[in-house]
Amino acid sequence: MKNKRMGRQTVVLPSSPSIVGFAAVGGKLESQGPLADSFDLLEQDSMFGQKTWEQGESTMQKKALETALSKAGLRKNQLDYVFAGDLLNQCIGSAFSLRDSNLPFYGLYSACSTMGEGLSLAAMLIDSGFAQHAAAMTSSHFCTAERQYRMPVPYGSQRPPSAQWTATAAGCTILAASGGGPHITHVTCGKIVDKGINDVSNMGAAMAPAAYDTLSAFFRDTKTAPDDYDLIITGDLGKLGREIVLDFFRKDGVELGDRYQDCGMLLYDLKKQDMHCGASGCGCSAAVLNAHLLPRMHSGKWKKILFAPTGALLSPTSSFQGESIPGICHAVCICSDPLN
Amino acid sequence: MKNKRMGRQTVVLPSSPSIVGFAAVGGKLESQGPLADSFDLLEQDSMFGQKTWEQGESTMQKKALETALSKAGLRKNQLDYVFAGDLLNQCIGSAFSLRDSNLPFYGLYSACSTMGEGLSLAAMLIDSGFAQHAAAMTSSHFCTAERQYRMPVPYGSQRPPSAQWTATAAGCTILAASGGGPHITHVTCGKIVDKGINDVSNMGAAMAPAAYDTLSAFFRDTKTAPDDYDLIITGDLGKLGREIVLDFFRKDGVELGDRYQDCGMLLYDLKKQDMHCGASGCGCSAAVLNAHLLPRMHSGKWKKILFAPTGALLSPTSSFQGESIPGICHAVCICSDPLN
Repeated sequence: MKNKRMGRQTVVLPSSPSIVGFAAVGGKLESQGPLADSFDLLEQDSMFGQKTWEQGESTMQKKALETALSKAGLRKNQLDYVFAGDLLNQCIGSAFSLRDSNLPFYGLYSACSTMGEGLSLAAMLIDSGFAQHAAAMTSSHFCTAERQYRMPVPYGSQRPPSAQWTATAAGCTILAASGGGPHITHVTCGKIVDKGINDVSNMGAAMAPAAYDTLSAFFRDTKTAPDDYDLIITGDLGKLGREIVLDFFRKDGVELGDRYQDCGMLLYDLKKQDMHCGASGCGCSAAVLNAHLLPRMHSGKWKKILFAPTGALLSPTSSFQGESIPGICHAVCICSDPLN
Repeated sequence: MKNKRMGRQTVVLPSSPSIVGFAAVGGKLESQGPLADSFDLLEQDSMFGQKTWEQGESTMQKKALETALSKAGLRKNQLDYVFAGDLLNQCIGSAFSLRDSNLPFYGLYSACSTMGEGLSLAAMLIDSGFAQHAAAMTSSHFCTAERQYRMPVPYGSQRPPSAQWTATAAGCTILAASGGGPHITHVTCGKIVDKGINDVSNMGAAMAPAAYDTLSAFFRDTKTAPDDYDLIITGDLGKLGREIVLDFFRKDGVELGDRYQDCGMLLYDLKKQDMHCGASGCGCSAAVLNAHLLPRMHSGKWKKILFAPTGALLSPTSSFQGESIPGICHAVCICSDPLN
């Protein structure tokens, strides 16, 4: 078997699986943000027509999957695998969204880096002939996350300036063995990095070292430099986390500049929408990928991007027990033309 | 790329990745059960020398990984991937066990079927040249599960006869591109099956339809019959769930008989240990695989087995909201000699 490994953490996908469908669904605040026009569906009702927020979150995923399939021109039973996960305890957002789908399902948990993990595994299984079509999907919901991780929503508890706002959004990307692109050419699997940050209102700082670690591994393994990419985008580090990543690279003598963006800073208007450090949640990078990045790759704005969503692998229990916050980041390289 | 798919849900692994290391760690009740002699490590202290049960659960995983690596004769940095997950909210059992490992990590959530999902993905990535070595690992802990899913442990709440007992155990299996076996030859990815069971004290009934669904898909896809296998083993359905699976197959005119076992019935002595319907938890099937099944494949007792752990994709929140319990089952075929 041909070795597809490049260095310690990165693999090359010789067949460059193609992205053939993608969709993003968002809520009220997302409909007031700068990416509103790019969403496939925006809903003002936080319940998404259901009886509970959790059912609403599952409904977002269902709609994202249906829309992505429709845009890909595929029937549901053409999907060989769905990779999905979310922030809810026991990932019920994904399990209940797929309960009646009759689709082969591998459940993931990688916090807000789930979109990166799902894309990675879907692309690798397609590249190796285990699948013709596979979907990667995730979601988050402000109200389900808030009451699970922090306070009951009606308390209206105050948030420190370093806090981020959990996106109410879902994204689904469908990959295929062949298609017109964009293509996934490389995948870098993250390691857990924990620098001892234990402030749950400062997730950007907790996850930034993992983003730096995975991006550095990608450049080292592929023997490329940031300048080789039109866009390098982490998520969801927010304003503070992005600054920290810029600083880490600066210490290595690398100035990332505006070529480096973060999904958490793009979903909302940080000045007008009072979101402090930006957006967070699995749905943040999933929505930015599917509503913003992929359409603009299609239109030719970017030809080669590095998508690197970040996750904080804590739970309320681990924080109550005084543990620091482990971070992780999974990266995929997406190219319009894999030969270029 | 060669198509490796067989039917709707099953794939064949042409290179048959080899299991080169395996280990099981258990707690006090596991040390009193019929498999006690087969565990690599048994610990009487439910904290495993730590300050919290959650840290204890992570410690079990750490020890399972270390022991499996040692038995495989591998250094930690030879592992290309670890696939791990557990039952704790946000899967902190796995995240904290791997926090300092410096290992590439893909997090999974598939409830008690996690060992099946991890083995599947590890084997597929090795078969396709993305990895030389990969580990699949999971755990559960009676005390962390009990207080998260049910009642604070000191309440000593009564359990109905259909209930199972969450195993305090961890298992780790290490796969490699080459080795003397046993080998993973086929993988069947499960679909969610939900027949409307909402009794959280009867997980066997909730998961049995998923087990039947995945096993049926495996036999259909591979054009084989139960008689072609020395052992077909689900987990963790327990006594009642196993009866339901037997019934489902009986309706198809297939008598599985004693060839069909369930991990939930093997970990404890159901008569002496008063465990009602048997063991459950991610650690149950992981421990039975690594302490019981793999050693006996090595010794020649079985040559070809079908390992099909089952998971219940509920959460306390979904149950409080009146939802039924979605089940899933992921199967892998393990052979001593893949050419036979």
